[in-house]
Amino acid sequence: MASGKMILYWGSGSAPCWRPMLVLAEKGLSDKCTSKRLEFSKGQHKGTDILAINPRGQLPAFQDGDVVVNESGAICMYLEEKYSDDSNRLLPQNVNERAEVYQRMFETSNIISNVQEPIVRYRYRTKTEDLDHGYLKEKTVKAKEELDRWNTILKGKDYLCGGKFTMADVFFYPYLALFVRSGAKLADQPELERYYETVSKRPSVQATWPPHWKEGPGPGTLSDL
Amino acid sequence: MASGKMILYWGSGSAPCWRPMLVLAEKGLSDKCTSKRLEFSKGQHKGTDILAINPRGQLPAFQDGDVVVNESGAICMYLEEKYSDDSNRLLPQNVNERAEVYQRMFETSNIISNVQEPIVRYRYRTKTEDLDHGYLKEKTVKAKEELDRWNTILKGKDYLCGGKFTMADVFFYPYLALFVRSGAKLADQPELERYYETVSKRPSVQATWPPHWKEGPGPGTLSDL
Repeated sequence: MASGKMILYWGSGSAPCWRPMLVLAEKGLSDKCTSKRLEFSKGQHKGTDILAINPRGQLPAFQDGDVVVNESGAICMYLEEKYSDDSNRLLPQNVNERAEVYQRMFETSNIISNVQEPIVRYRYRTKTEDLDHGYLKEKTVKAKEELDRWNTILKGKDYLCGGKFTMADVFFYPYLALFVRSGAKLADQPELERYYETVSKRPSVQATWPPHWKEGPGPGTLSDL
Repeated sequence: MASGKMILYWGSGSAPCWRPMLVLAEKGLSDKCTSKRLEFSKGQHKGTDILAINPRGQLPAFQDGDVVVNESGAICMYLEEKYSDDSNRLLPQNVNERAEVYQRMFETSNIISNVQEPIVRYRYRTKTEDLDHGYLKEKTVKAKEELDRWNTILKGKDYLCGGKFTMADVFFYPYLALFVRSGAKLADQPELERYYETVSKRPSVQATWPPHWKEGPGPGTLSDL
């Protein structure tokens, strides 16, 4: 089924890296793709082998024969279009239904700009004594509003776009799992909590769970959520 | 050709709003879509008509009969998949060529995180006397690196993915035009400058040029680029 030698370079705990791993697992392609885990802490994502295919020195980086694709969303779309059959599609064939999936896929950029960047990344890159607590308080309010929106979207639905796991879930879930790992309790977002529990049990998710998350607890940067 | 009553709500000078307008123009659909220009400065994007279809109160907001799509990328994908014929496709039919277009589409998120957010948006929301010039200097270096990357991508190509205007250009160009409007001179990025001049002359771009940009000069927030 594969068109060439498939290689995915990834780092443990990176939400963007987790996305194509989920697509590969959902399609039964994990064994056909060489998986190369790199260590961000050792700067391996800036190595010459990565820079040769991804000048940004970022993961995921992906190659399938002569085709190089690096952006997580683009890798997912490529895998979907190249390797789907009727048993494993992550995008509906009906154009109107597919529009809803695209809506949620692109809408995940809001959880990055409202939760990931202003709190998780900010706390990661700032020394404890330099933290601006006024800023954090303000951003925490916005982050809660963001999670509330997704809670509303999930009302009455198993997955983001209805009864089926789709590419929208592939884009969204890795960040949700990262937020829970970072201490978010989802106590005020029961639909989101239920969704988290359901998707977390999925075989593709279990098979691709970030290895280093199994070794110890997360950093607690979202414990106010 | 249209499946229902098409309406696009947009604001002048918003790069996300410009994207679906470009797709409509490229496909000769502009006349089939009711265009409602709203004023951000008057808070019209938070009006009840917008909130009814987009709970985020953001533009663009779009409706085609019963189909509601709001995220700019999702609207573009919907229009492409619903209304393309052999004369006006913005995504190549070959899956490997399409992967390159997806790569550049998703890669535009980097110009938002490296140029738009840290400089244009930061200067817009910060009082002149509160500006952190050390921060701005550091971000300006990263912004230049970002523009350099796109300059490299464009070497020997008319458009981002080769000889044809594609969805990658739809995603990228409105931000580039916003940067030039904001004072970026592109003196160190000759390929990007050439590309800017070429795409700016395109009939679809001319027909959708932000109306208020014709009334006076931009804010100069990127004059160090």
